[in-house]
Amino acid sequence: MNKTLVLEDILAQFQMVRKQTESICEPLLTEDYVPQPRAEVSPPKWHLAHSTWFFEQFVLVKYKADYQIYHKDYSYLFNSYYNNMGDRILKPNRGLMTRPTVDEVYDYRAYVNAEMSKLLDQTTNQEVIDIVKIGLNHEQQHQELLVYDIKYILGFQPTFPAYANRFIVKPNQAPEEWYSLEKGLYSIGASGSGFFYDNEAPEHKVYIQNCAIRNTLVTNREYLAFINAGGYKDFNLWHEEAWEYINENKINTPLYWHNKNGEWFNYTLGGLKSINLDAPVQHVSFYEAFAFAEWKGVRLPTEFEWEALSEKFNWGQLWEWTYSHYEPYPNFKKAHGALGEYNGKFMLNQNVLRGASVATAQNHSRKTYRNFFHASSRWIFSGIRLAKSL
Amino acid sequence: MNKTLVLEDILAQFQMVRKQTESICEPLLTEDYVPQPRAEVSPPKWHLAHSTWFFEQFVLVKYKADYQIYHKDYSYLFNSYYNNMGDRILKPNRGLMTRPTVDEVYDYRAYVNAEMSKLLDQTTNQEVIDIVKIGLNHEQQHQELLVYDIKYILGFQPTFPAYANRFIVKPNQAPEEWYSLEKGLYSIGASGSGFFYDNEAPEHKVYIQNCAIRNTLVTNREYLAFINAGGYKDFNLWHEEAWEYINENKINTPLYWHNKNGEWFNYTLGGLKSINLDAPVQHVSFYEAFAFAEWKGVRLPTEFEWEALSEKFNWGQLWEWTYSHYEPYPNFKKAHGALGEYNGKFMLNQNVLRGASVATAQNHSRKTYRNFFHASSRWIFSGIRLAKSL
Amino acid sequence: MNKTLVLEDILAQFQMVRKQTESICEPLLTEDYVPQPRAEVSPPKWHLAHSTWFFEQFVLVKYKADYQIYHKDYSYLFNSYYNNMGDRILKPNRGLMTRPTVDEVYDYRAYVNAEMSKLLDQTTNQEVIDIVKIGLNHEQQHQELLVYDIKYILGFQPTFPAYANRFIVKPNQAPEEWYSLEKGLYSIGASGSGFFYDNEAPEHKVYIQNCAIRNTLVTNREYLAFINAGGYKDFNLWHEEAWEYINENKINTPLYWHNKNGEWFNYTLGGLKSINLDAPVQHVSFYEAFAFAEWKGVRLPTEFEWEALSEKFNWGQLWEWTYSHYEPYPNFKKAHGALGEYNGKFMLNQNVLRGASVATAQNHSRKTYRNFFHASSRWIFSGIRLAKSL
Amino acid sequence: MNKTLVLEDILAQFQMVRKQTESICEPLLTEDYVPQPRAEVSPPKWHLAHSTWFFEQFVLVKYKADYQIYHKDYSYLFNSYYNNMGDRILKPNRGLMTRPTVDEVYDYRAYVNAEMSKLLDQTTNQEVIDIVKIGLNHEQQHQELLVYDIKYILGFQPTFPAYANRFIVKPNQAPEEWYSLEKGLYSIGASGSGFFYDNEAPEHKVYIQNCAIRNTLVTNREYLAFINAGGYKDFNLWHEEAWEYINENKINTPLYWHNKNGEWFNYTLGGLKSINLDAPVQHVSFYEAFAFAEWKGVRLPTEFEWEALSEKFNWGQLWEWTYSHYEPYPNFKKAHGALGEYNGKFMLNQNVLRGASVATAQNHSRKTYRNFFHASSRWIFSGIRLAKSL
Repeated sequence: MNKTLVLEDILAQFQMVRKQTESICEPLLTEDYVPQPRAEVSPPKWHLAHSTWFFEQFVLVKYKADYQIYHKDYSYLFNSYYNNMGDRILKPNRGLMTRPTVDEVYDYRAYVNAEMSKLLDQTTNQEVIDIVKIGLNHEQQHQELLVYDIKYILGFQPTFPAYANRFIVKPNQAPEEWYSLEKGLYSIGASGSGFFYDNEAPEHKVYIQNCAIRNTLVTNREYLAFINAGGYKDFNLWHEEAWEYINENKINTPLYWHNKNGEWFNYTLGGLKSINLDAPVQHVSFYEAFAFAEWKGVRLPTEFEWEALSEKFNWGQLWEWTYSHYEPYPNFKKAHGALGEYNGKFMLNQNVLRGASVATAQNHSRKTYRNFFHASSRWIFSGIRLAKSL
Repeated sequence: MNKTLVLEDILAQFQMVRKQTESICEPLLTEDYVPQPRAEVSPPKWHLAHSTWFFEQFVLVKYKADYQIYHKDYSYLFNSYYNNMGDRILKPNRGLMTRPTVDEVYDYRAYVNAEMSKLLDQTTNQEVIDIVKIGLNHEQQHQELLVYDIKYILGFQPTFPAYANRFIVKPNQAPEEWYSLEKGLYSIGASGSGFFYDNEAPEHKVYIQNCAIRNTLVTNREYLAFINAGGYKDFNLWHEEAWEYINENKINTPLYWHNKNGEWFNYTLGGLKSINLDAPVQHVSFYEAFAFAEWKGVRLPTEFEWEALSEKFNWGQLWEWTYSHYEPYPNFKKAHGALGEYNGKFMLNQNVLRGASVATAQNHSRKTYRNFFHASSRWIFSGIRLAKSL
Repeated sequence: MNKTLVLEDILAQFQMVRKQTESICEPLLTEDYVPQPRAEVSPPKWHLAHSTWFFEQFVLVKYKADYQIYHKDYSYLFNSYYNNMGDRILKPNRGLMTRPTVDEVYDYRAYVNAEMSKLLDQTTNQEVIDIVKIGLNHEQQHQELLVYDIKYILGFQPTFPAYANRFIVKPNQAPEEWYSLEKGLYSIGASGSGFFYDNEAPEHKVYIQNCAIRNTLVTNREYLAFINAGGYKDFNLWHEEAWEYINENKINTPLYWHNKNGEWFNYTLGGLKSINLDAPVQHVSFYEAFAFAEWKGVRLPTEFEWEALSEKFNWGQLWEWTYSHYEPYPNFKKAHGALGEYNGKFMLNQNVLRGASVATAQNHSRKTYRNFFHASSRWIFSGIRLAKSL
Repeated sequence: MNKTLVLEDILAQFQMVRKQTESICEPLLTEDYVPQPRAEVSPPKWHLAHSTWFFEQFVLVKYKADYQIYHKDYSYLFNSYYNNMGDRILKPNRGLMTRPTVDEVYDYRAYVNAEMSKLLDQTTNQEVIDIVKIGLNHEQQHQELLVYDIKYILGFQPTFPAYANRFIVKPNQAPEEWYSLEKGLYSIGASGSGFFYDNEAPEHKVYIQNCAIRNTLVTNREYLAFINAGGYKDFNLWHEEAWEYINENKINTPLYWHNKNGEWFNYTLGGLKSINLDAPVQHVSFYEAFAFAEWKGVRLPTEFEWEALSEKFNWGQLWEWTYSHYEPYPNFKKAHGALGEYNGKFMLNQNVLRGASVATAQNHSRKTYRNFFHASSRWIFSGIRLAKSL
């Protein structure tokens, strides 16, 4: 889980990652590839095409001699937020795009894969390899979003169809314990030759106070106690922004929870199920994670505490909300050109999540990884880890 | 065009109408059946299922002994606005429904068709026949909406795919003339034994003043002159509500018009084409129809003038906006139960359109037919006929 | 009540009408003149200034030699919807205007009154007299809106302050009766030399069917029975547009009704009072008027029925919703220039109200008068008269 | 500027602060006290009453024997966001409240002042003194908001009325220099017996990297160069959230800037003036401050860098945006009860501003003070200080 992507054989890696994306989509029916139920949930078809466009635009067009663009409109259609790369279709309209069809998108993938394979088979250009590494990491991020978006699309079908028995979070197994950290200077962030994103660097010192972190994630059982104690109705537990949000959006449970005649169910990728009380609570916003911790009389960890303590507990089932807003590390340098848009432009009013989830690509996690989402996000695979000051 | 549905052989009629719906969808690819680009544009899949649900709900469930409901959720999923028939899915969410799939919906149609055929083959119950007639007229209305919605879905693809060379409006052929009507009492509305909707009855007298109507519809050439004369910028030509609407929505041409480097194109079901200046202008709102008439120094006809004069000119290419708000005729009686919701509840703040369009089902037009839409509607097959007082 | 404005002595009329506007504002405190609680409710200060601006802009500037504009910005500030007269402040922002102050606005009125008096004292120009007549009718319309707006501003104070014992609707006194009309051609609309608006003309024939109208307005007692019978929860009684509106806006009583511990109160200009069950129900939308009539098994009158029958019953307490959409009469001609904007541009998706209310200026009512508002309006002084077909 | 409030004589302090609030309002006319042009801009009348309510609710009701509440409704009317204190009027509706009037609010102040004076004249209860200190600091915060809100209300009058020659920012006088800090552990936050807010504590260590800060604030001249260089059109300079915000709200200058025929003006409390190019740029959002720094190739300071370097430069003219999101310090404890709502609930998606402004109350600034606003805020007295890593 915690290893970095081994990139000696870039071509093999390329083929493996590309295949994995399609494997995630394998249980889908054609219609499931199309809709965009809310702005941040993209159609699976779009993910398949966009991650392909990335290689066409940033690798093939620039580095492969005599490369023939697959289709002149695709650059416009499958750009996401790379403002530097010209026009793009407005994000909320992705679900209206019925053409190209799913089959055509798979053809596009096959064409780009073939061209990329030819290129990678012979290239020794380190610049190409570096950008391909970014492209693969980019595609792995989209693999995870694919899982989120598929769950959302299927989970909002009135008929709750099952996807498959994949990406299921397991119950906590260890007994609850608290691990403590002694105050002092700690080294935070990534360095060295393994792959990491610009936002994980540079490695730098942070002074951390005495604190402790819990080894197990908060369970559905604990969270249900919070609900039953009126947690969603006590404004003292919530941030002002959170209180307005949950009231306006009538939120009073995690996403995908349903109460039928007093019994609790939640939609899982295996269909609608009775809630497993021993499993970690999933699909909570930062708002809810914070309010739960307030109610418990403890708090969420900062991302620095999390990283400094990360060797002491198991992680990787669910992304863990930290109280840290997503900011640049000291001496942060954003990459040049379009790739520079990738991380820096989101460093405002987002919260950092640490760890990884069952939907994270296999070589795509490390203790320095900084995931980030807006505090209101609930369709991500998020959970709650508690911390406290000592 | 102007004949009423011949219903002697109700089973043959049923089969013909049901087949025609599927024929309209024949050029679509699976993905095209799914999205709902705006609230009033329903997914083709939904039309196919909803028109089927109508027969299941109002005929088979009530009149066929031992009928087995095809799927318990479909009543909920494919109800439209029949509040009397229990829960329904919110209209703006139809485009999020990926299940049942297109194939499953066709299976549903086949099942209901088979059951209906068994029933109709042997029924002599006039009540059944009457409701089937309504169901077929209902399905014919959805056939027309299907054409509108397909055009909208494809017309908003950035790639402007062609549908087929069907439902194309032809250029005016007759020379322009004005036909006049002498003031007096005229009989308006439907009576007799042929099929008509409740909103067309009862037949009644209306006093009409001296007036005249133009034999030909307003052409793209004429409309372009209005655009070039600044028609969209002169608030004196527009209703207050219209002026706000076109400014807020940045409307300055009919729907589907595009200007590339000074040349005008419009999206047609045959793809993106140079505008045919001799063809009738299509896809205008009531707002635009009214403003154009103001600019010309004439006006739109009332629905009564239209009906009284309708034998004097050719109609049937495009629905024609009248200045009449959609109101009940004197002594109007709405039908009982769920079918009563059909027309009466829309009799507020809608405008009547008269005539028919190239997308209207073949036996589904008559001079007393009252179509109605909100004044802002532009995705319908609408055009402009001029009138004047004498 | 039903006399037309006697305009022999235009100067006396001018002074009387102008004084009446200020008399309406007399009970207000300075702060009450400022806010605009919703877009259609203008600040009293604005009414005072706008009705003054009308005379400055349309009379003094054009007809008085050497007239000195009072303040260069006022034309911009106090224009309403006269697009032809140049820039204007956006309607929803009127409540943000603290300058000019109330005193300054009264000074403006005094200045324009003095200048107008000089002009009218000596003019024999019929064009001037005609436009002054329009200005006075315009100001009388604003007098009525002033009453509505003052009631809204004070009625939404959490402390429900009283205004004065003026403009109070009295209980019905006559026993309930129905007056009938025999079918035939009736003459509708205004003609002759008395003042009337362009929208009341020309007089023309309308064929009306047998019908009857109730002599008394619907009472609070009757309306409460409708509420208690679940009228607001039965969608069969409502138009589609109405049903969406009342649900979205959580409407389940007339405006200004409050229930405290099971007892009903309503805000009146005399303060918060127990509801008088014998008084006519007030502050209902067209939506509500229609639904009530549906529930009673009768209907609202058309504006033509109302006018043809108007000599048979007393009216003038509350404006009466008709089922007629506001449309131009045959051969309607709108006035030239800015004054032409006055009526014609609203002839779309509004309903006609007939009669007058206790807030109507004394010489400002006649049986041909066509008031109009959007079907959702509730802050106007509206009531319900029932009709039926025979 | 940098001294803490001397509270030996609590009664004298009370009287001085209370008087200062009224002094700020002295140039206003009655009408100016009423409107609320946007949700975050409160009516001056409301500030006057709310800061009074604070003393009534938290001091007099609890600590003064036989205290008579001034008016039973005021607790409801003038509560702000203290959810713990019962119902409150919705924030966006404050501008609709015309009653109590301005005079009545001043009477309320006088009454509470008299009662408070009686209490403070004799109290030795430290609990009372502590809460009064909070109340005075609270009122001083509202004094600053009063200045912002008055400027907004007057600045959006089409006539740009002057307020007074107060609260005017002066041009930079020192030559531009950069002061550097050596990396290491620094002590951040407040401690000791002087007054400070809960969010400034506890004092704690922070490791800071080598960096430098500029002694002078960014001037209008520099900012104009950014505008002229197309800064508002280059998305590479902006956060994603910022780019959407400025485009949606059509922002392309600081607030209050106006361009007339190519010349730049800005609204100041002294009226509309030619922009003083040597004065610090004012009324910029965090979005704009960040984009400007990006364009300059430097960055904003963190709040820790700012505090550690604060003795090296002059501050106090304008609040200075830092790149630090507003988060609790390690071991932060929020106060009990309603006062605990004061700071903690805003610690999400807000940015810290450091320093003080010309509108800050005289004893209400210190280097540990943490002001905070949403990144989009522009009506506050904010400016830009630059920093860089070394």
